[in-house]
Amino acid sequence: MSLDGFVAGPHQSENNPLGIGGMRLHEWIFPLAAWRASNGSDGGEINSSNAVVEESVANIGATVMGRNMFGGHPGPWNAGEPWNGWWGINPPFHHPVFVLTHHAREPLVLEGGTTFTFVTEGIEAALDRARKAAGGRDVSLGGGANTARQYLAVNLVDEMEINLVPVLLGSGERLFDGLGDDLHGLELVRTVSAPRVTHFKFTRR
Amino acid sequence: MSLDGFVAGPHQSENNPLGIGGMRLHEWIFPLAAWRASNGSDGGEINSSNAVVEESVANIGATVMGRNMFGGHPGPWNAGEPWNGWWGINPPFHHPVFVLTHHAREPLVLEGGTTFTFVTEGIEAALDRARKAAGGRDVSLGGGANTARQYLAVNLVDEMEINLVPVLLGSGERLFDGLGDDLHGLELVRTVSAPRVTHFKFTRR
Repeated sequence: MSLDGFVAGPHQSENNPLGIGGMRLHEWIFPLAAWRASNGSDGGEINSSNAVVEESVANIGATVMGRNMFGGHPGPWNAGEPWNGWWGINPPFHHPVFVLTHHAREPLVLEGGTTFTFVTEGIEAALDRARKAAGGRDVSLGGGANTARQYLAVNLVDEMEINLVPVLLGSGERLFDGLGDDLHGLELVRTVSAPRVTHFKFTRR
Repeated sequence: MSLDGFVAGPHQSENNPLGIGGMRLHEWIFPLAAWRASNGSDGGEINSSNAVVEESVANIGATVMGRNMFGGHPGPWNAGEPWNGWWGINPPFHHPVFVLTHHAREPLVLEGGTTFTFVTEGIEAALDRARKAAGGRDVSLGGGANTARQYLAVNLVDEMEINLVPVLLGSGERLFDGLGDDLHGLELVRTVSAPRVTHFKFTRR
């Protein structure tokens, strides 16, 4: 998240999925040893962000994400050449992913253990299915902002990590817009300062 | 500033100068030894916020603030019983304060070395006068958000300290609204994590 509260820039599109300037919120992670290791590369920077990144991907058995994060186009799926996500034939999840959508679709099985299952029955149904698929491990809420807000609003988020980057985006998608003046049961339990980002971890009281 | 970017809550008024919930952004400071000492009291909590508070008040020779922070009512000053600020007869500044206003008024001399001078010639004139009055010491930009934004937008801020409190206000006055997607020459140089607040210090590149 930027200092002014945005988790994506304006004008998100197929060519610019994070919106204008949105990549500035992610640049802190790419030089890290933990990030490089998760992509099969050696080396990289060692700083206090590494442990946070390692924790964020440990013990995840399934992911839930919104249609906007899965990407493509709004509305019904293109029948001839359906959008199959941003991540190519071997996405980095390597576990079941549940995509919230209003438009039913057969599951999409890709390489490396990633399957995308399209859920039209709402956020609680998607979470139930993700929990079962995770087999006792944690469910990651991938995003985007709209999906995160929906789960926050009904107190279904147990842990939240805000990676705050000291830049302004000026416009775009705000994580907390419309949530009101409380964190829905979450409270800050840990702050980690790193050179390009500060990590705030919240857990349920 | 709240996690969602507000520096004051909604519905600011004479009875509620920080807006609804705005006091939640300031509660971190009151238990601190450094805060108590600045008010002539002993004791208090010792944590990493103390040095930040001490630094923020050291070497200040003058303050600039907006009319909204000085408070009272909008429009021309009430001739019979003019508003004299929130701080009583011995305000905590103890140095010259320059108040930006569209409505001329004689200076207000209070106890303890605090004088309020009302400047109608704009932000650069107010800063010039504050610099001269500070006699080589620093000029503090007191706020509020609108005044801070005006100085930020013309690159007249040399240092900025954001005290980020992990709460949501949901609505109110956003510090950075309308500033666009850059920090106008400021960059993060220091982060301090404390139990109830994280301090981000920016300086001019």
